[in-house]
Amino acid sequence: MKKIDLHDYVATVKDYPELGISFRDISPLMGSGPAYREAINQIQEFAKDLNVDLIAGPESRGFIVGSPLAYALGVGFVPARKSGKLPRAAVSASYTLEYGGINELEIHQDAIKPGQRILIVDDLLATGGTINATREIIEKLGGVVAGVAFIIELEDLHGREKIMEAGEVPFLALMEY
Amino acid sequence: MKKIDLHDYVATVKDYPELGISFRDISPLMGSGPAYREAINQIQEFAKDLNVDLIAGPESRGFIVGSPLAYALGVGFVPARKSGKLPRAAVSASYTLEYGGINELEIHQDAIKPGQRILIVDDLLATGGTINATREIIEKLGGVVAGVAFIIELEDLHGREKIMEAGEVPFLALMEY
Repeated sequence: MKKIDLHDYVATVKDYPELGISFRDISPLMGSGPAYREAINQIQEFAKDLNVDLIAGPESRGFIVGSPLAYALGVGFVPARKSGKLPRAAVSASYTLEYGGINELEIHQDAIKPGQRILIVDDLLATGGTINATREIIEKLGGVVAGVAFIIELEDLHGREKIMEAGEVPFLALMEY
Repeated sequence: MKKIDLHDYVATVKDYPELGISFRDISPLMGSGPAYREAINQIQEFAKDLNVDLIAGPESRGFIVGSPLAYALGVGFVPARKSGKLPRAAVSASYTLEYGGINELEIHQDAIKPGQRILIVDDLLATGGTINATREIIEKLGGVVAGVAFIIELEDLHGREKIMEAGEVPFLALMEY
């Protein structure tokens, strides 16, 4: 079988969402059975020595990466949702948006038990704001961030450094741009 | 191993989002490795004779059901996103919200090829509005709805009838309330 190059499944959209920005869209990767499976399996390989109890992913593309990974590992999935969407008691943290403004993420209070090890995943690492907000909530709930994993890392935005400033954790990015 | 009863993993939230409504929250199901896997495996069993090329799910809880199912079946996942979130050319359809208002869903134009068979999944079937909008987009793109599957069906809201009015399709709901 021909080896899959995940880069072939990234669509680059020029001047989106703003002039001068090239948006990396992984819809083609998610839409391809073999490429999607290959990406999730690579993250699963990274996760297997991390003793992960749960996968967490920020709304909403993080759900498309995190939930199949949770399924593959046989663990639960915890969504970090935009504020106002969870029906029960939740803990929140805010972050600055990449293109301006402030947003808030929330996780159900009973979703994480103290001491549980959580791998945070998302499709793309930009400035790291959503990841650090997700981490803040996990740590407020007594959880331990076991690692972070992304399909794509945008290196120029230095998100990885921002994450490590909040505490060193195992890191994986399947592709760098 | 003790058989898993998925009902044990549904949290009922009284008077949410409105007085008199009991919201069925499947966060506990998603957060449990064994229950989540059991639910996805039951849908996979339903899907296996449907010759499915792709799974589609509406934003955003549909992603948490649809993407692990796509992974399990080895097919791609197509998100039906709320309008204004997709970076490339998309086709849309609108629907009436359960608690008032109108919303719009979109799918990338190149996500579905004519003749492809798509299974639509979501966490919960209420009035069927989001499902019929997703179906409308799929059919505009020449795709065929191979079936619909849900974790929960709210029978009193007659969503199933609404779906069948748009054309009979194989139907699965893991739980009924």
